[in-house]
Amino acid sequence: MSTPLILHEDRLFPAEPSARGVARELYGEARGLPILSPHGHTDPEWFATNAAFGNAAELLLQPDHYLYRMLYSQGVSLEALGIPAHGRPTGADPREAWRLFAQNQHLFRGTPSAMWLDHVFAEVFGFTQRLSAETADGYFDEIGAALATEDFRPRALFERFNIELLATTEGPQEDLVHHRAIRDSGWTGRVVTAYRPDPVIDAEHEQFGPALEAFAGLTGQDVHGWWGYLEAHRIRRAAFAGMGATSTDHGHPTAATADLSPPEAEALFNTIVAGRASPAQAELFRAQMLTEMARMSLDDGLVMQIHPGSFRNHNRLLFEGYGRDKGADIPTGTDYVRALKPLLDRFGNNPALSVIVFTLDETAYSRELAPLAGHYPCLKLGPAWWFHDSPEGMRRFREQTTETAGFYNTVGFNDDTRAFLSIPARHDVARRVDCSFLARLVTEHRLGLDEARDVSVDLAYNLPKRAYKL
Amino acid sequence: MSTPLILHEDRLFPAEPSARGVARELYGEARGLPILSPHGHTDPEWFATNAAFGNAAELLLQPDHYLYRMLYSQGVSLEALGIPAHGRPTGADPREAWRLFAQNQHLFRGTPSAMWLDHVFAEVFGFTQRLSAETADGYFDEIGAALATEDFRPRALFERFNIELLATTEGPQEDLVHHRAIRDSGWTGRVVTAYRPDPVIDAEHEQFGPALEAFAGLTGQDVHGWWGYLEAHRIRRAAFAGMGATSTDHGHPTAATADLSPPEAEALFNTIVAGRASPAQAELFRAQMLTEMARMSLDDGLVMQIHPGSFRNHNRLLFEGYGRDKGADIPTGTDYVRALKPLLDRFGNNPALSVIVFTLDETAYSRELAPLAGHYPCLKLGPAWWFHDSPEGMRRFREQTTETAGFYNTVGFNDDTRAFLSIPARHDVARRVDCSFLARLVTEHRLGLDEARDVSVDLAYNLPKRAYKL
Amino acid sequence: MSTPLILHEDRLFPAEPSARGVARELYGEARGLPILSPHGHTDPEWFATNAAFGNAAELLLQPDHYLYRMLYSQGVSLEALGIPAHGRPTGADPREAWRLFAQNQHLFRGTPSAMWLDHVFAEVFGFTQRLSAETADGYFDEIGAALATEDFRPRALFERFNIELLATTEGPQEDLVHHRAIRDSGWTGRVVTAYRPDPVIDAEHEQFGPALEAFAGLTGQDVHGWWGYLEAHRIRRAAFAGMGATSTDHGHPTAATADLSPPEAEALFNTIVAGRASPAQAELFRAQMLTEMARMSLDDGLVMQIHPGSFRNHNRLLFEGYGRDKGADIPTGTDYVRALKPLLDRFGNNPALSVIVFTLDETAYSRELAPLAGHYPCLKLGPAWWFHDSPEGMRRFREQTTETAGFYNTVGFNDDTRAFLSIPARHDVARRVDCSFLARLVTEHRLGLDEARDVSVDLAYNLPKRAYKL
Repeated sequence: MSTPLILHEDRLFPAEPSARGVARELYGEARGLPILSPHGHTDPEWFATNAAFGNAAELLLQPDHYLYRMLYSQGVSLEALGIPAHGRPTGADPREAWRLFAQNQHLFRGTPSAMWLDHVFAEVFGFTQRLSAETADGYFDEIGAALATEDFRPRALFERFNIELLATTEGPQEDLVHHRAIRDSGWTGRVVTAYRPDPVIDAEHEQFGPALEAFAGLTGQDVHGWWGYLEAHRIRRAAFAGMGATSTDHGHPTAATADLSPPEAEALFNTIVAGRASPAQAELFRAQMLTEMARMSLDDGLVMQIHPGSFRNHNRLLFEGYGRDKGADIPTGTDYVRALKPLLDRFGNNPALSVIVFTLDETAYSRELAPLAGHYPCLKLGPAWWFHDSPEGMRRFREQTTETAGFYNTVGFNDDTRAFLSIPARHDVARRVDCSFLARLVTEHRLGLDEARDVSVDLAYNLPKRAYKL
Repeated sequence: MSTPLILHEDRLFPAEPSARGVARELYGEARGLPILSPHGHTDPEWFATNAAFGNAAELLLQPDHYLYRMLYSQGVSLEALGIPAHGRPTGADPREAWRLFAQNQHLFRGTPSAMWLDHVFAEVFGFTQRLSAETADGYFDEIGAALATEDFRPRALFERFNIELLATTEGPQEDLVHHRAIRDSGWTGRVVTAYRPDPVIDAEHEQFGPALEAFAGLTGQDVHGWWGYLEAHRIRRAAFAGMGATSTDHGHPTAATADLSPPEAEALFNTIVAGRASPAQAELFRAQMLTEMARMSLDDGLVMQIHPGSFRNHNRLLFEGYGRDKGADIPTGTDYVRALKPLLDRFGNNPALSVIVFTLDETAYSRELAPLAGHYPCLKLGPAWWFHDSPEGMRRFREQTTETAGFYNTVGFNDDTRAFLSIPARHDVARRVDCSFLARLVTEHRLGLDEARDVSVDLAYNLPKRAYKL
Repeated sequence: MSTPLILHEDRLFPAEPSARGVARELYGEARGLPILSPHGHTDPEWFATNAAFGNAAELLLQPDHYLYRMLYSQGVSLEALGIPAHGRPTGADPREAWRLFAQNQHLFRGTPSAMWLDHVFAEVFGFTQRLSAETADGYFDEIGAALATEDFRPRALFERFNIELLATTEGPQEDLVHHRAIRDSGWTGRVVTAYRPDPVIDAEHEQFGPALEAFAGLTGQDVHGWWGYLEAHRIRRAAFAGMGATSTDHGHPTAATADLSPPEAEALFNTIVAGRASPAQAELFRAQMLTEMARMSLDDGLVMQIHPGSFRNHNRLLFEGYGRDKGADIPTGTDYVRALKPLLDRFGNNPALSVIVFTLDETAYSRELAPLAGHYPCLKLGPAWWFHDSPEGMRRFREQTTETAGFYNTVGFNDDTRAFLSIPARHDVARRVDCSFLARLVTEHRLGLDEARDVSVDLAYNLPKRAYKL
């Protein structure tokens, strides 16, 4: 039995009629604004080659660990879903994988994945019946047919999505060949990079050694010496800025920062590159490098993003069998107050520095992050992140940060996704949730309607533009 | 002045009319479903002997630490309430104790206890005026008279409550005589046991020594040797399964698990039984035993429940004077990400294992538990527990777990109570709160009404049935 | 362009009409009750001398770190705002500072500061247009003119605000000269003190040495010996009680308590006064002193308040340049379960002791504080504090404590402010939020309207009166 797929125009708005009316009005102004996506993980090759996407499973299911992790949690094997092990293609039939996915749609009830998918199915592909066991094959065929057309090439979709700017994420050891190709192609879409140096900073990263070699190769520096290593960072940061980067991004296990003296830092670095670092030393080096990155940001103007608190690759067998980023990264309790102090003691009062902090530990919103961002000139709060990039998560973010940090110490929304087609859906959810929060403030007479109107536009467009210096 | 006691048919539903309408509709399907109570603490002797309950104080007040702890917090002595010290009867007059309770009803305003009590008073006993100083004696008399009738015997109430299955909790050292009597009685009510081995696993339990002796006596094993000890567990688990058990239950101070080599485990066990264990070794042994229990579950199919995070018997004087379970168990911050990893590294990818995890630390819902349950095949989330078994607690549970774990990595509701008469009330609250949450999703157009209808029945009946293999 | 300033009479009430109606009704009874402010930080000199306040910047902006910290977070310098460095007057022009503040009003959108300010502007000064760049000078002039009149003297405002009692906070080393002057003046306003011994208890306090000297001077005791030191506390507590104090207040980094033997305590004290204490010893001494203070409270009846969990003076440069209390105190995760146990093991079952506990770590509400207060006779919960003294913060407080601790283990509202003019605004917000919470319970049929009416009056007036023994 197939059922209609309906994107209700009031979705995510509060049910109470007066609040819904205000939300609708606010959203009316925010909905049409261009999309700024200053932090994401799409593949720049898509826009460089503009090749057609393959099929529904390859485009929508297999790159999205939100989706296959849920199926996996209910006993569906990754093999059957066609998830590549260490990048090696699997023998799974994409249509069969898609059917498995379609049969299990009930698992996504109440999740943001369901909202994003429905938006993609209805808005991007024009489906009018829900995905289900019955409609699985029809979906697979129609999506496949659409993807073969010019209108569904990456650049065409980019333009259709009204994206003003899209940032991808690359490491210092990567050569940015696709970004160069995009720039040289004459295409006017703004796809920029962001500098994510984790592989050459994190001695516990499985790619640390090879990444360091490539880092040396690209910069011509002696990256096994502290001063050459720092210089190589400066060189690559400049190269990234040349490819449009306005930000760096740091995905560390904790938010720890350090402020060692130069001799201490050099000695620590020597231990790191010698491969003799203890876990505590690896942690201290990551901490020190955040402060070094802040120092460089004061020179080159790149905005820093800190994304801490994920226990990466928690599932040992899965990591060994499939590699990283397979939906088994689990948040942990994260301290910010003590962790950020060394960096803040050094640079925290300098308004020329801009550090955007994210969290996977929501308890930090009201307790630590809003008080810190509501005081230090350099700090801003990134939006609700990862598992919290969801209607309830976004609502909690506003409820728990606004009263102490205000709206203007936050940076609007960024989607953080590798699921390209879901980008408009995600921004739409964020705008709707923010408008709903504002509508509550208005109907409870805590904010004027004129003020709410300004704020809704600021959150959707002006704040990310300013925070990321776009 | 006495005031009417009214159980409003829309209680716990949202006030907003459209959401209330949806909640009402969803609840209409869930309300009549049979009660599955796979985790509780009623006394099997009640159903074995089917003897009449005594009086209002003995039945409703004295076994319910939710109630007397609140009176105690306001300076009422436990003696006056007739709370037995170490099981010894007190000299308190039950009617006087009941009057004290009645006079202090205002303390329960806004608490789930008030809702449960009102439900019992109105639905089970038919009262139409609230309990108060004025009505205390009338309540005491009428309840006493009712309890003397056949209709209020344990088995009659069990049937009236539409309970399909009720699990009690026993230790390996207990002989299950009451369960045997129930089975032999020919009564068709399903009262089963659950295997709670804490007293023979926790070297810091005050009954550890005697429990171990009884464990040996019941199994004929050398339980002071590691292999005999494990074999004794296997024997008792089989005996419990023979009395209907489908689950084990583990109430540990933390969620720590361990995966020692057999020689390490044996050496640790030898230290434990020699009475020489440090607190850290006692903790490590509890941790190791969770992994051993998981291993046995893969053999015998019993579902594991882990209930961590309570600082038991926090009030030293009360513990010394009255014994355990006197309302002085206080939750603490609880880590799951690191704690569960050894067990998960060993068995976490095996869908044949089923581990239901509970928490008293709500911060873990969105940060740790939903991401873990939304990934690992063996993990499911138990419902909002203990202090969080309440309308606001249940709402937070859904708001903070659904977006990441979905509904289908949760196991519906279980009441966890020793207050037999409150069981229908508690399930009714849970069904109403879940329907209200679903109603919000429906009215905010985040879920179809047809989907919500399925989910409400799944949460009330199908999910516990499946999760506990009933 | 200037816009109207409107204090809507339904502000902070839920938008849903039936809930709003109930909230309005409940608030109708609470709104006119006198203000009890048993915990605050106004300057007793105001009421002693009854001198006119200076100007808008000096009265409203410069003492309120909620306000200037927000401007500072957006790059406005403290110099420009006229914030004194170490109490030294700045050269900033008050009108220019006020203009800077006025231009940045958008930063306060959605914050409690905005609500408090609007209330002060509209109710105390009668403004009808919002503060903005355009109205800044008009505001400055009109406020200045008003402050020069008799009606805006401290005592006149005190009476106009319908304050029944206002407590200030002083240290043992302070001579209470202003309180004596108030008492001797014949004025009938009740302004009392509270005993805050942190400067003579916290060896890490920058004033510890001088404070100890003054403490000796005022008591004539040998405060460098343990027994003289304790006796000096008893003397000063009695002196404070003589100036109306009914409570002590303890602002410690953590909630740690200790229960050392007298020789251990004496030895620790000797290390402290010798200036040789490690951080751990300083912490242990603070912990021990909470238990000593509890012991003294059992003798003299003073209510204890514990305010833990702030990382004081987090911004090193600001602390060095400006001193303490400059908006750079940041909350940290705070344990209560283990921390309070030594004190509770000693005195926790004594209903004659009254300890009011506050938190900046909201995760403790449902996990630790409500269970503790719902059991121990000596414990009560202070209201949502500091950054959580806000509509959302107060709502979370009720949602997360009521079900386990009830309303009657809480103490109503206290404002904790040094911003005198905002006191009525803060109490008004608290009453409105509590009435809104109660209205939800009523409309969801979880509480009778008659009960809610009692509770709303208890929260606004009776509970603080009883808890603080006023």
